[in-house]
Amino acid sequence: MLKREMPKERFAYDPQKVLRKLEELGKEILEEVKQGKNPYLDIPTRGLNNVYFDEVKRVIRMGNKLSRRYFLNVAHARKFMQTLLIAAYVKRLVSEGKHASLREAYYANKHTIPGTKENTFEDQSESDPVIEDLERMLGVLREEMHLTADRRGYVYGDITIRDGEDEFNTSKLGMGGWAVPGTVEHIQFVDINVDYALVVETAAMADRLIEEKFPKKERALIIATQGQASRGVRRLIHRLHYEEGLPIIVFTDGDPYGWYIYSTIKQGSINLAYLSEKLATPEAKFVGMTMDDIKKYGLENVTEKLKGIPPNKKGGPTGDYKRIIEEMNYPWFQTKEWQRQLKLALQWGVRIEQQALANKSLEFVAKKYLPEKIANEELLP
Amino acid sequence: MLKREMPKERFAYDPQKVLRKLEELGKEILEEVKQGKNPYLDIPTRGLNNVYFDEVKRVIRMGNKLSRRYFLNVAHARKFMQTLLIAAYVKRLVSEGKHASLREAYYANKHTIPGTKENTFEDQSESDPVIEDLERMLGVLREEMHLTADRRGYVYGDITIRDGEDEFNTSKLGMGGWAVPGTVEHIQFVDINVDYALVVETAAMADRLIEEKFPKKERALIIATQGQASRGVRRLIHRLHYEEGLPIIVFTDGDPYGWYIYSTIKQGSINLAYLSEKLATPEAKFVGMTMDDIKKYGLENVTEKLKGIPPNKKGGPTGDYKRIIEEMNYPWFQTKEWQRQLKLALQWGVRIEQQALANKSLEFVAKKYLPEKIANEELLP
Repeated sequence: MLKREMPKERFAYDPQKVLRKLEELGKEILEEVKQGKNPYLDIPTRGLNNVYFDEVKRVIRMGNKLSRRYFLNVAHARKFMQTLLIAAYVKRLVSEGKHASLREAYYANKHTIPGTKENTFEDQSESDPVIEDLERMLGVLREEMHLTADRRGYVYGDITIRDGEDEFNTSKLGMGGWAVPGTVEHIQFVDINVDYALVVETAAMADRLIEEKFPKKERALIIATQGQASRGVRRLIHRLHYEEGLPIIVFTDGDPYGWYIYSTIKQGSINLAYLSEKLATPEAKFVGMTMDDIKKYGLENVTEKLKGIPPNKKGGPTGDYKRIIEEMNYPWFQTKEWQRQLKLALQWGVRIEQQALANKSLEFVAKKYLPEKIANEELLP
Repeated sequence: MLKREMPKERFAYDPQKVLRKLEELGKEILEEVKQGKNPYLDIPTRGLNNVYFDEVKRVIRMGNKLSRRYFLNVAHARKFMQTLLIAAYVKRLVSEGKHASLREAYYANKHTIPGTKENTFEDQSESDPVIEDLERMLGVLREEMHLTADRRGYVYGDITIRDGEDEFNTSKLGMGGWAVPGTVEHIQFVDINVDYALVVETAAMADRLIEEKFPKKERALIIATQGQASRGVRRLIHRLHYEEGLPIIVFTDGDPYGWYIYSTIKQGSINLAYLSEKLATPEAKFVGMTMDDIKKYGLENVTEKLKGIPPNKKGGPTGDYKRIIEEMNYPWFQTKEWQRQLKLALQWGVRIEQQALANKSLEFVAKKYLPEKIANEELLP
């Protein structure tokens, strides 16, 4: 039986920490300017060659390569100025308790430098990397700097959340559920009355489970990602697991995209390697859909063909086939169970959707498929 | 000043009506079979040639062309069978008070016909049109048949909603807001404590307004569409306007996509012409972004170039230019005000985003732009 575990982390959002780090950064640079030195910033290098898989902690992590950005260097000066502009902006946001989207941060800081025809930023593709640089330099999440990501996803289940002055139970909001905001740093969990969280790829499946009263019967919290999990949702999952001890079970389509969604929740992504420890949940488990489900539950009639060219055909592998082969090489899929599933998918050339379970009956997923697999712990690692 | 008006419609969701219509349909066909006749279905024709703009009601409407689908006709038999299968399925859903997604409806009804190798449905592209046929034949919304659309969007503001046994105020859910379900037929408005609803294209802008406490200060309900408005959101807007008398104001990016979002909320879409009277809200007004805003608020520095080739250049018009010219021909944009805005966009070759207002200050949109424009009724029709 799945049970809530002992928490491993404490609620740790501390705006003062971010402000202190930004002040230190500012003072150092000011000091160097005063001393007539050439100020610089040491920024952890981005990209694959500064990323590795930590076998012990089982997350993607950032290496320790640094690149130095000087003020008095024609190739660096523009980026140096941009970094300080954004740092100053973030300081203002955090001190005032305000949040801004990445797009707002771009527009707010775009202006023509007086006496020149030079703009501080020409495009959001200039400000976004600077924000990532700051995250890596300071070791804080973008969300802790009050820069919010796109929001997507909702939750439904018997937990009580405090957000500012509001306190509400996410199982008392009709069929709608609570829309997960871009930033969940500030919310607190007042009461958790569920045994685990079930992360569901599609809204249609989450709504099916809500309609079947699955959250109540199985004491589960439903988290609908609506596709790839947003940063807010991944942070929520992380917090529910580490601060509240909730086991995390992921339920996606049985296809390369679904498995990638699982992979991102579990291990983080290469782009955001520097955040894995705050965004990823390596202990998450996978309930389905698997290739074995097709045989076990007689779903042969409702599979779909993989897209693209198989590896043994001319021009292959492409499309789904190529993605599956890439996933077979992920360090965290190097288990007997996952290799088996991925090989079967290649071999049969099919994928299977969550909603294909409706072929049995609408109730099937809520009354048989999930309760059985979860009770018997038929879960992939 | 914007004020709530007298309601024009009453809460009218009646599952019994749908069941009665389905039973009638079934009985007629059974009767014809018994009499040895060739049963048929009369289905309003789809497509542009059966659609017109009703100048009085100011919505896109369906004409009265019918096409007859016979059981005993090789070209019709498969579709006839599919229509009856889905009709029977819908009857079961509605009687049991259950909902299904379009995808579930497809999977649930896909099977091999005993004694043959023929599948009832090969692909969802076969079941979706049959569902549309039923909507047009019976004059009921897909949602009234308990077939839910994809959900997207959330609301925030001082209104109290009842959904089943739950009753909640959508301004008491922290920064999150209430996630709008796929179907809003069954919800009831217990208390409305706002003067109007502001429909906002982007989540980032909706969140900005929530953070600035705009809903409370301006007695507004925020409805975030997160892109093109989902059917659930359009139905919610319609119901809030006609059943509760709330004026509807739409706030999108100043670009062809934003204006199209407005257009769909206001007048319905050609695909769903048969539903305009239930989905559209022709009285909706548009607050921005407009081309005039750029000059008035000094936003020249934060516009973006239109994509594509202008009409007077070789190969043009394409991209944004083409879309704008199409929109200039929409019957509901045949006003002096709209023609002026669309012409200016073509002339200047620029678009302007909601979030560009952050260039003034984060508060600007909530403290100046919107309150001023709305108080002075600087709204486009």
